[in-house]
Amino acid sequence: MDYTKILNEIKDELSSFPNDGKIATYIPELSKVDPEKYGVHLHCTSGSHHAFGDCKERFSIQSISKVFSLSLVMKLLGDALWDRMDVEPSGNAYNSLFQLERENGIPRNPFINSGALVLADILVSEFEHPKDEILKFVRKISDNASIDFDEKVAQSEKEHGHRNAALANLMKSFGNIKNEISSILDIYFYQCSLAMSCEELSKAFMVYANEGKLLKTGEEIVNPIKVQRINALMQTCGFYDEAGEFAFRVGLPGKSGVGGGIVAVHPEKYSVAVWSPKLNERGNSLLGMETLERLTTKTGLSIF
Amino acid sequence: MDYTKILNEIKDELSSFPNDGKIATYIPELSKVDPEKYGVHLHCTSGSHHAFGDCKERFSIQSISKVFSLSLVMKLLGDALWDRMDVEPSGNAYNSLFQLERENGIPRNPFINSGALVLADILVSEFEHPKDEILKFVRKISDNASIDFDEKVAQSEKEHGHRNAALANLMKSFGNIKNEISSILDIYFYQCSLAMSCEELSKAFMVYANEGKLLKTGEEIVNPIKVQRINALMQTCGFYDEAGEFAFRVGLPGKSGVGGGIVAVHPEKYSVAVWSPKLNERGNSLLGMETLERLTTKTGLSIF
Amino acid sequence: MDYTKILNEIKDELSSFPNDGKIATYIPELSKVDPEKYGVHLHCTSGSHHAFGDCKERFSIQSISKVFSLSLVMKLLGDALWDRMDVEPSGNAYNSLFQLERENGIPRNPFINSGALVLADILVSEFEHPKDEILKFVRKISDNASIDFDEKVAQSEKEHGHRNAALANLMKSFGNIKNEISSILDIYFYQCSLAMSCEELSKAFMVYANEGKLLKTGEEIVNPIKVQRINALMQTCGFYDEAGEFAFRVGLPGKSGVGGGIVAVHPEKYSVAVWSPKLNERGNSLLGMETLERLTTKTGLSIF
Amino acid sequence: MDYTKILNEIKDELSSFPNDGKIATYIPELSKVDPEKYGVHLHCTSGSHHAFGDCKERFSIQSISKVFSLSLVMKLLGDALWDRMDVEPSGNAYNSLFQLERENGIPRNPFINSGALVLADILVSEFEHPKDEILKFVRKISDNASIDFDEKVAQSEKEHGHRNAALANLMKSFGNIKNEISSILDIYFYQCSLAMSCEELSKAFMVYANEGKLLKTGEEIVNPIKVQRINALMQTCGFYDEAGEFAFRVGLPGKSGVGGGIVAVHPEKYSVAVWSPKLNERGNSLLGMETLERLTTKTGLSIF
Repeated sequence: MDYTKILNEIKDELSSFPNDGKIATYIPELSKVDPEKYGVHLHCTSGSHHAFGDCKERFSIQSISKVFSLSLVMKLLGDALWDRMDVEPSGNAYNSLFQLERENGIPRNPFINSGALVLADILVSEFEHPKDEILKFVRKISDNASIDFDEKVAQSEKEHGHRNAALANLMKSFGNIKNEISSILDIYFYQCSLAMSCEELSKAFMVYANEGKLLKTGEEIVNPIKVQRINALMQTCGFYDEAGEFAFRVGLPGKSGVGGGIVAVHPEKYSVAVWSPKLNERGNSLLGMETLERLTTKTGLSIF
Repeated sequence: MDYTKILNEIKDELSSFPNDGKIATYIPELSKVDPEKYGVHLHCTSGSHHAFGDCKERFSIQSISKVFSLSLVMKLLGDALWDRMDVEPSGNAYNSLFQLERENGIPRNPFINSGALVLADILVSEFEHPKDEILKFVRKISDNASIDFDEKVAQSEKEHGHRNAALANLMKSFGNIKNEISSILDIYFYQCSLAMSCEELSKAFMVYANEGKLLKTGEEIVNPIKVQRINALMQTCGFYDEAGEFAFRVGLPGKSGVGGGIVAVHPEKYSVAVWSPKLNERGNSLLGMETLERLTTKTGLSIF
Repeated sequence: MDYTKILNEIKDELSSFPNDGKIATYIPELSKVDPEKYGVHLHCTSGSHHAFGDCKERFSIQSISKVFSLSLVMKLLGDALWDRMDVEPSGNAYNSLFQLERENGIPRNPFINSGALVLADILVSEFEHPKDEILKFVRKISDNASIDFDEKVAQSEKEHGHRNAALANLMKSFGNIKNEISSILDIYFYQCSLAMSCEELSKAFMVYANEGKLLKTGEEIVNPIKVQRINALMQTCGFYDEAGEFAFRVGLPGKSGVGGGIVAVHPEKYSVAVWSPKLNERGNSLLGMETLERLTTKTGLSIF
Repeated sequence: MDYTKILNEIKDELSSFPNDGKIATYIPELSKVDPEKYGVHLHCTSGSHHAFGDCKERFSIQSISKVFSLSLVMKLLGDALWDRMDVEPSGNAYNSLFQLERENGIPRNPFINSGALVLADILVSEFEHPKDEILKFVRKISDNASIDFDEKVAQSEKEHGHRNAALANLMKSFGNIKNEISSILDIYFYQCSLAMSCEELSKAFMVYANEGKLLKTGEEIVNPIKVQRINALMQTCGFYDEAGEFAFRVGLPGKSGVGGGIVAVHPEKYSVAVWSPKLNERGNSLLGMETLERLTTKTGLSIF
């Protein structure tokens, strides 16, 4: 498969794509990004790399980080984790309280905000320095010690985080948050502020395409069965209330963030990251989804 | 992969499985089935067959039939179909009115009851004898002219179909049903009454594992891109509000019915059907899900 | 209290009222009415009458009729009625399915559509000719044998009644409708088609201002305790999801209809009917509510 | 009307009332109360007093205090208040987030928790020492300088107030809370901790039965029109999702609290307070509602 040729075709076709998406503005820091940024990086299990555009520029990965915290927590806990959250698509917006209230403070899955807050709660319970552990994990799978939180983004999240505070307080009222709410929110906001490029993301996500092992050394980072389950969760829950659309159009497990990034993996074949900050109305990168749809259409291969 | 050996292991392991599921009783006909029935049939793209138990006995396939009507409609219509329904998991029970009301009569996906009723409406609009067309399609992909509706089940459904009549009337009030409600319900109830064995189902579903082509002749029945999309829909929406659980535990696209049947496909590898009438509280075969989870665990292979 | 003077003041003040309401158009027959019609008729327990405008012209009373069917049913049944519906404000639109589904087919109160359909079901069970009984009751309390259904309106309702059919089917699936759905809907649509003038309505509703007795003869039509309860229901549930607003601004028990009529009673003092077809966005007569607010403000008297 | 005789009858009849209610236990302080406490105090506009039982013992008035904060805010603000909350029954539990989320952070009415939190927010904006102002108002209308907050109850509320913190944060995310959440919650918890006896409560609520004036001096404390509106709100929204039931059975404007107190007023006739800590499943005093139903049944008089 000539991925370089395919990526170039996509780049050409989409150069005139009418993009009426809107960048995220709910925190000031995110609204400062150049809306025309666009980059892709694809990393094959064979070791080859293919890319174009702004693929080396870091951006705020936001909810993509939830895959990392889920992986960390799944390494710590066994099935006990699933007493505190479910594995079902929510059918609702990522920050909805409605379902959480009806279901007694049990989040539908780890990728909606409430689920990620429970993951943060577990990290606070299990680690003395949970933020350091997150960094350590990401730096390890990316083989890159320079990856870091963006302080300005984290602060900006904190100042506008009332909806997340509402979710955490609601869950605490049901007993599904054990620690101080401020400490949970602190981890959550820092984790979301991680700044990474498409190149770095596709390298980090190789572990999910490669049965849980680092490509370079073969070291197992996540158990293969757990990797399959994380991928299944990305497939059914990785795109908020647009997970079905992504499965339908693209056909790969993936995860998006409101910073405009999307990562996807084709198990045993490749991991890919795309970045374009303008979001569709459901909060996913409009050009990013289009790019990945063309990728699986042109290769003729999805997991389905 | 020695599927016969694996199936035998599963059979042995589950011979003492404590099954506290309940058979469907909402219509009298379904409640008459022997709850201890249990069979599996697996059909490889290589042509080999593997099976055990009551794999040759016909049962009511119920919602599994929605895959057939979706395939028929996707052959008739292009993307216009998706103006009338979405491709998202519902996050709600299969017969819920709540979401349908809030979303102005547009079903979340073709596999919840409301979506299947819209499919039936399209079949009424497009065909003079829609029930015959359904039979024709199923007989063709199963290479079996004896497959038929079960009149008693269809009548029983009709007598207890008020919830489905509510769904159809609600959609008609929003203009998303074009034909007479009684004619829509008639097709829907007959379609759900189709009686097939695991062997027949796994043969019929081979078309979804084999890029849309009949294994024997290579004839293309459904376009390969459409097959990928049908498989994606099975993955995200095939198990009502338990689709995430099935993806998480089994990791294959599949579809269940309240008659206790489940079909699943591993694209390019195999199609499999399992039958055990006792359902879990979300309406899916309890032993059926357990069987398929062990199948993908033992083979070490899922689509993820 | 000089009601004639007060009504004249209101008429003058509201002659230039900017009315941006919209007439009901969901059935063709209702949309044919002259939107500028406006009339009031007030009937005192002392026997005096006060009126202005189109107070003698008949219009479609629609949901106001639910007070009559409730009264008939409360005469037939004791507290057994309340096993089949509740007495709480719904907090939702009058034709909402959401709450009815969540609450297992038990309507919140007799004045939302689902509640009125259960009333119709009871009338079918209890009477051989339920429509005749409704007419008999209304003619009796109005002392007017010419009051009748409007066939065209009833037919028009029937042709556009899919939402009500959805409600009835949903309740039947929960066992809260006992008779054939078509016969229930027939009564419901005819009852809503009753044509009455403000003068006739205020006369009919005198029974609710006069402890259940006909003013002229003193004959008890409804038990006084039941009248208090019907008035309480009008207060808390008589205006769909605007019941609080009517209590807050007007302060009288009342009932509205999408034909633009509103009736209200001040127990022991008067009954009043107003008609103006333009509705606010919650389906209540915009000028009608304004008129009644000024009436209780100018008299300084509400039940509160 | 011989109220003393009527109250004695009620006392006798209910001495053997089978009370299967449960005292509130969500905060430890409330769970310490003697569940068998029972007292009534009725205060006529004529000046007479009638009482029995534990009518002089103070208890935690909880949500009854919302009538006081609403009165204070209505004195400060005109109709601008109603831009920040509605006047409709919620149809949902008093602490539900679902509706608040769907309606963009605008509470349905001032008597559900979210509405009372907005009232607290306004008191923080308008007063330097809002808690003092609440005390001043209650002491004034009760003519009793000894009424005070219960520090232990207030602290206990604070430690278990995560649900209220969730409500406040959700509203802040929509811009409907202007001040620091901790300061809002502080006022809210103290206000709910007010300790008053039935005698004190019935005296305080006389202002709502007496057109806003103190009975002793005739001094106008609340504008008469505003009093009518507060009474209307008590009628439609004073009992959470049981407001309809209270209107139906009792027929008076009233307000309950989870401490087991209920106050009700018959405008121009009397105010009455009853206390019995065992609550029905919707959080209202079971024996209290029964007592008031018998009161209006025996007098034959309700506002309806």
